Amino acid sequence: MNAVVFDMDGVMFDTERLAIKAWDWIGEQMGIGKVGYMVFKTMGRTTEESVKIFKNDFGDKFVNDDFQRYYSIFLEKYYKENGIPVKKGLYELLEYLENNGFKIAVASSNSRDVVLQHLRDTGVEKYFDKIICGDMVSKSKPEPDIYLTACKELAESPSDCYAIEDSKTGLQSAYAAGCKVIMVPDLYEAESEIEKLLFKRFDNLLIFKEYLEQLQK
Amino acid sequence: MNAVVFDMDGVMFDTERLAIKAWDWIGEQMGIGKVGYMVFKTMGRTTEESVKIFKNDFGDKFVNDDFQRYYSIFLEKYYKENGIPVKKGLYELLEYLENNGFKIAVASSNSRDVVLQHLRDTGVEKYFDKIICGDMVSKSKPEPDIYLTACKELAESPSDCYAIEDSKTGLQSAYAAGCKVIMVPDLYEAESEIEKLLFKRFDNLLIFKEYLEQLQK
Repeated sequence: MNAVVFDMDGVMFDTERLAIKAWDWIGEQMGIGKVGYMVFKTMGRTTEESVKIFKNDFGDKFVNDDFQRYYSIFLEKYYKENGIPVKKGLYELLEYLENNGFKIAVASSNSRDVVLQHLRDTGVEKYFDKIICGDMVSKSKPEPDIYLTACKELAESPSDCYAIEDSKTGLQSAYAAGCKVIMVPDLYEAESEIEKLLFKRFDNLLIFKEYLEQLQK
Repeated sequence: MNAVVFDMDGVMFDTERLAIKAWDWIGEQMGIGKVGYMVFKTMGRTTEESVKIFKNDFGDKFVNDDFQRYYSIFLEKYYKENGIPVKKGLYELLEYLENNGFKIAVASSNSRDVVLQHLRDTGVEKYFDKIICGDMVSKSKPEPDIYLTACKELAESPSDCYAIEDSKTGLQSAYAAGCKVIMVPDLYEAESEIEKLLFKRFDNLLIFKEYLEQLQK
């Protein structure tokens, strides 16, 4: 293997769990009650699809502009007070990959601004050879486009790249691109038909690093 | 159509959303923090599978006996203070079905004790011709067994029965049995491959009743 492509939210940073807290708070601000449970319904969907689901459930009470504004307020305050929550083993894994000649990329559906900000704030930007975001491809996960672009930018065949993912659509996208799919679970636990797509499953990034070390021996 | 088979949790009663609150509280009692988000990982799984997922995430800190004990304590107290939360349109739909000669059954994976208790506490037991629970079949949802049993007990062909479901495994089970699958969403929103299994989708039970009224005109 020559390269590792990371999904960001839920893989590098513990941001998915934070979304539940944020949505609970936002719902109360908007007068529709705690709506953290709505992550259930919108997980792995595009923003457009998610907005449709919210409108379907809450009608005119759901105003997307307000929702997004409150979301920014919540996250800005949270990050300022607590920093970006980094997943166990991220620093160790990145250091190991760099020292062992792996190319490293991120393939995130999040916006370029947010991705760059998170990488900078946590001091990991220097490790990444390529940063691929949703705005660089026309078809979002579960389509393979974002992983195909990442591999192309790294000048590697997908079959020589590990892709680390936590979400269903992400796992499907990486598999469809032909990458070796590594699942590190966050909020989603793969059902049996998705488990079939996995090359390996590790409880956290540190265990993936230990696996790579074993391979080298 | 001659009959309607109801799933219980999330369809008749708003118990799935309550589980998130309960699990948050239980996690704090057990010293592992709010774990309502774990419903993500265990949704549609059997108890055995769910316990495995908890043990994987929390190790020895997760003691299932304590978890179940706290769960009973939470629900008993909640139901005593608030009653069972009934989903919009349940009473109206049941009354309509009875007045129009439909046979009515429940097909729930929950235990018989809990199902009977909920039906009694909400005063809807009288509407049900048959009550099918998880203990009556060897294979749980998404296998078709529970819906096949329900139809057999009602002496109806599955193709003459509506099945009302909210969860992925429930929708798959009802479809596999050959029922006309009606989705009334709760916490889960069907992705495109599951949408294909649906006969109809209604936002709540009241709208399903209105649909049936229109058919009769």
